[in-house]
Amino acid sequence: MYQFRNDYSVGCHPVVLEALSNANTEHVVGYGADKYCKDCADLIRELCKAPKADVQFMVGGTQTNLTAIAAFLRPWESVITPVSGHVNGHEAGAVEATGHKLLTVATSSSGKLSAALLKPILEECKDEHLTKPRLVYISDATETGSVYTKAELTELSLFCHRNGLFLFLDGARLGCALAAQANDLTLSDIAALTDSFYIGGTKNGAMFGEALVITEPKLQADFFRLKKQRGAVLAKGWLLGLQFQALFKDDLYFKIAKHAVEVAQYLQGGLKNLGIPMMTDSPTNQLFPIVPNTLLPQLDKLCTYEIWGKADEEHTVVRFVTSFATPLSAVEGFLKALKDIT
Amino acid sequence: MYQFRNDYSVGCHPVVLEALSNANTEHVVGYGADKYCKDCADLIRELCKAPKADVQFMVGGTQTNLTAIAAFLRPWESVITPVSGHVNGHEAGAVEATGHKLLTVATSSSGKLSAALLKPILEECKDEHLTKPRLVYISDATETGSVYTKAELTELSLFCHRNGLFLFLDGARLGCALAAQANDLTLSDIAALTDSFYIGGTKNGAMFGEALVITEPKLQADFFRLKKQRGAVLAKGWLLGLQFQALFKDDLYFKIAKHAVEVAQYLQGGLKNLGIPMMTDSPTNQLFPIVPNTLLPQLDKLCTYEIWGKADEEHTVVRFVTSFATPLSAVEGFLKALKDIT
Amino acid sequence: MYQFRNDYSVGCHPVVLEALSNANTEHVVGYGADKYCKDCADLIRELCKAPKADVQFMVGGTQTNLTAIAAFLRPWESVITPVSGHVNGHEAGAVEATGHKLLTVATSSSGKLSAALLKPILEECKDEHLTKPRLVYISDATETGSVYTKAELTELSLFCHRNGLFLFLDGARLGCALAAQANDLTLSDIAALTDSFYIGGTKNGAMFGEALVITEPKLQADFFRLKKQRGAVLAKGWLLGLQFQALFKDDLYFKIAKHAVEVAQYLQGGLKNLGIPMMTDSPTNQLFPIVPNTLLPQLDKLCTYEIWGKADEEHTVVRFVTSFATPLSAVEGFLKALKDIT
Amino acid sequence: MYQFRNDYSVGCHPVVLEALSNANTEHVVGYGADKYCKDCADLIRELCKAPKADVQFMVGGTQTNLTAIAAFLRPWESVITPVSGHVNGHEAGAVEATGHKLLTVATSSSGKLSAALLKPILEECKDEHLTKPRLVYISDATETGSVYTKAELTELSLFCHRNGLFLFLDGARLGCALAAQANDLTLSDIAALTDSFYIGGTKNGAMFGEALVITEPKLQADFFRLKKQRGAVLAKGWLLGLQFQALFKDDLYFKIAKHAVEVAQYLQGGLKNLGIPMMTDSPTNQLFPIVPNTLLPQLDKLCTYEIWGKADEEHTVVRFVTSFATPLSAVEGFLKALKDIT
Repeated sequence: MYQFRNDYSVGCHPVVLEALSNANTEHVVGYGADKYCKDCADLIRELCKAPKADVQFMVGGTQTNLTAIAAFLRPWESVITPVSGHVNGHEAGAVEATGHKLLTVATSSSGKLSAALLKPILEECKDEHLTKPRLVYISDATETGSVYTKAELTELSLFCHRNGLFLFLDGARLGCALAAQANDLTLSDIAALTDSFYIGGTKNGAMFGEALVITEPKLQADFFRLKKQRGAVLAKGWLLGLQFQALFKDDLYFKIAKHAVEVAQYLQGGLKNLGIPMMTDSPTNQLFPIVPNTLLPQLDKLCTYEIWGKADEEHTVVRFVTSFATPLSAVEGFLKALKDIT
Repeated sequence: MYQFRNDYSVGCHPVVLEALSNANTEHVVGYGADKYCKDCADLIRELCKAPKADVQFMVGGTQTNLTAIAAFLRPWESVITPVSGHVNGHEAGAVEATGHKLLTVATSSSGKLSAALLKPILEECKDEHLTKPRLVYISDATETGSVYTKAELTELSLFCHRNGLFLFLDGARLGCALAAQANDLTLSDIAALTDSFYIGGTKNGAMFGEALVITEPKLQADFFRLKKQRGAVLAKGWLLGLQFQALFKDDLYFKIAKHAVEVAQYLQGGLKNLGIPMMTDSPTNQLFPIVPNTLLPQLDKLCTYEIWGKADEEHTVVRFVTSFATPLSAVEGFLKALKDIT
Repeated sequence: MYQFRNDYSVGCHPVVLEALSNANTEHVVGYGADKYCKDCADLIRELCKAPKADVQFMVGGTQTNLTAIAAFLRPWESVITPVSGHVNGHEAGAVEATGHKLLTVATSSSGKLSAALLKPILEECKDEHLTKPRLVYISDATETGSVYTKAELTELSLFCHRNGLFLFLDGARLGCALAAQANDLTLSDIAALTDSFYIGGTKNGAMFGEALVITEPKLQADFFRLKKQRGAVLAKGWLLGLQFQALFKDDLYFKIAKHAVEVAQYLQGGLKNLGIPMMTDSPTNQLFPIVPNTLLPQLDKLCTYEIWGKADEEHTVVRFVTSFATPLSAVEGFLKALKDIT
Repeated sequence: MYQFRNDYSVGCHPVVLEALSNANTEHVVGYGADKYCKDCADLIRELCKAPKADVQFMVGGTQTNLTAIAAFLRPWESVITPVSGHVNGHEAGAVEATGHKLLTVATSSSGKLSAALLKPILEECKDEHLTKPRLVYISDATETGSVYTKAELTELSLFCHRNGLFLFLDGARLGCALAAQANDLTLSDIAALTDSFYIGGTKNGAMFGEALVITEPKLQADFFRLKKQRGAVLAKGWLLGLQFQALFKDDLYFKIAKHAVEVAQYLQGGLKNLGIPMMTDSPTNQLFPIVPNTLLPQLDKLCTYEIWGKADEEHTVVRFVTSFATPLSAVEGFLKALKDIT
């Protein structure tokens, strides 16, 4: 069985496991006040060239999104998000449960926002009987695997700051975004252009963990209390710091992402060669092939994957995802096996 | 340095680490829909003799408390808790952040509730200008290490059910409670006498994790959606199931607790022999010695511990906690060293 | 100056003012536990042929919507609303502030929902990573003045009940809906087909006040406590009961609405005769003429009205609203004056 | 039947009714953007000598408390209140429903806070696992009729500002507080010493309405949007402005309070002469006589009042309240009738 279900279906990269094992018997102070977290926060500040950034480790993506947004906004302020944004589509109303409205924006299939898409919402919300848009939520890579260029992110950032909007970037798959061939952004660009973003660990080699970076000083106050309040403080907080330390040593984080993207792109090329079209041409580790419905039963036997949606009456969009746990040989094997049945 | 700071200052029991390592490269379906979680939930239902119970794994204690309470209550309903309850004292307003009032009850130093303590609150809250008390929060062991007897829990349970109150038991330290000499409760008693409770993993051998058991069918509906909404669904959910499986194999969970309680009691006896009184006579793994303020500097060099509070102008209550990671030899060594300086 | 700004720009109908004046020196028990509220609730139950309905008086529409929705839903449950629904467009995130997501549905310009429009949302939300749709919000008349037919409301009601959805009807302008020529619904039809709805007073002759009717017994529990919690209990609650009593005496409520609709329809006919098209052909007391931008300065001198939106680069949709305080003579005078300038 | 149930059991002062009647047919712009509200806000700013204060009119006290607190605090911040504070005791968890914890302080029977009572809470809450106290809630008069002296309020104000706490004063009965013989505060003192407070209308001659004054500029931003979100914007907002205008004309507001206090004090003196002790010696319009339980049936026939609580097995504390609608002759008549039966 070839494994393309997602990038969070195995435990963690062996180097991370080793780090967890090595530190397992050590007595460490709790709640993230430990040396692993402190050193790792310093390391991240350095990587981001953001010496005054606050770095907060949390366990998962939805938790990070909801905690950050709850911390950053006043009750009457709202979030602008693409319709396809994870906060809108797959978090069971987590943001609304913190009291904030999502203002959704229809986008192209890339799922990317731009100044032009934001303007009409700002115009409409001048009316004081509406919420005040205050935070723009984007993700890189997006839900459909697209990445922002430096020019795009710069335009968005300028627009946000001119209009009193915080720019928040969900980086659950930031590793793969940075590893994409289309990418011209660096971690420090992202730190400079956003007010806050997070570096996803769960989908890029960690057993679990996301590192939230808050560059805007106004958003840093009292974050720990809010994090505690949302149940997002891990008692054994050092488990997060030490995982990210392991990931950033020798560029492992970036190597993991590079591998995932390379095998994904190899797979995408192979699928196209077999005449299978894509819903969108993804430059990262998520692929969206459009397959005939009649192929699905055979695909079920061959590999794991997810149904993304209906393309038309006779075709289905499926999602294939790669990770550090996807050897190139598996992609080759899969393509060969697929060729035999198509 | 002797380590008595708390029971969550090392990673996890070696058997749990081994289980995590062994499963690390396996591809598993996410969000707790995996075989580890399913099998472990079955196992817990069996241990609890509660075949219809819902079992929900979460990462930490505050997260479990807030998610359960948010799921169980209607907006106008409130929680009765001892003043010393963890939800009142150390969760940064997590329950209130879900919209619910805490009605606090002053208790003896044991931190235990009883029907007699609940009655006046119910009487007062008949007034419809107040919230409706709907859930009674207790913990076993309590914050000061006390345990409920079967008679006490039965009385409380009957009172709750006669008065339309759900009884929720925070079991962050349930292992040690069950291992206390004073204890006559079993897991199945607790399942039968409460509407929901959780089996704490973080403080009893797991790397992280709490297993929430919901016996009352009315409280089970749609729990997953609420859990997702609060950021409490772990993407790699199987990590929780497999840890609890490892803990319940060969009674490891109970053995860990037994050890922690035994070394704590040995330590308590030794401290008393040295003429050090206790704030309360704890039967579990948390001890509350009252030490002269003048001793604190020396204690700081000898061991880790926490300041619990002021006893009087010249004395301080400190907290010592043991765990599976506290060898008997360490307790012996500490007592000897302490004897030398007192 | 002719007055078409809205239907809540004068105090109240003289009969209501008289009732308020007459009762002004009477000592009455507070918080709605008085005889006026009780008798009026009985009267409304009778009018609705809903002997077991709960009737709750509140001050305003947004307050009623948010209080009802907060009372009716569990935290993970969401509201389906037309994009144009008042809860989505003009309540500053009031529903989200109670923790609930709005699932918006694009509709025709009528702003009406139907089973066909609801189905895809239910299908999508089977995914447990999303909220559970639980309440369908509609209004009659809608924000664009449309009304539901009995067939339409019956279809919607059946669909909701077959699919575990509560049907809630915002009746801020229910009087005018029932008075529309296109209408074939009665108050008792609405009570039978919805789970809860409210009878708007503020826009139909009351000084202030909305009467929420809850027919579904499951939604009635403890409503007063929730209402108190949201600041929606009026200390001098009888002021609400006595106004609605005055409104329902001798069918005043219906007469007021009938007048408002008649003068509106006369106005609509007159505007059309002047060659002014409508954005939508409204059967109630709100009209949406499309006027050349060049006409606006003159209109500003002639009457009050609101800008609804842009029709095209050269035309604007404006909103004219009538009420009991709009004499037919004013409509005639306005049409004549308008004719002179067009 | 003599009427001492409360100060909100009749409609409104005749002058207010006249103002409402006179303006009834006028067409006015909605939502508080009208001339009445603007002029009245100016007037209040002048009375308070607070030219930069924001003035916001709302309908009722619980609504004002919850809206102000929701607007002023970040999610992790909490409210310090006397145990007897209205927000803690009689608002059905309204503050917690906005997500904020109440930190309750035991006080003397006066219900007043002081720096000495606040210090220990601030000390305890330095712990980041707790909420951050941020707002101190007091009321003047308190729930038991006490008033703050200028020295007391100044001390509290200084303490709050030195410690980063906002001071909020619930003035539901501010009129009577200012009219008390023991009082040495003025409206402008209160404006200077607090960050926000409200001037209660409902209990002092208005049909309904409270005027919130926000002197601290940091707390003023976007208040309207939050008010709208909580359902606290009255469509016919001018009804609030015009009532307060009527109340502040010719010092009516202060005259009403003076009368209420005078008749209450006359009543208190008379009760004492009859040998009836008081729970607390109230200087305002609420009295708390301690009566033998055996007297209650007769009292029930003689007058309206409320049961406040149990004094001992044989005595009950009752509450008598006076208002502009309590003629001196009624107090005299009541005292005479009471003398006959005691």
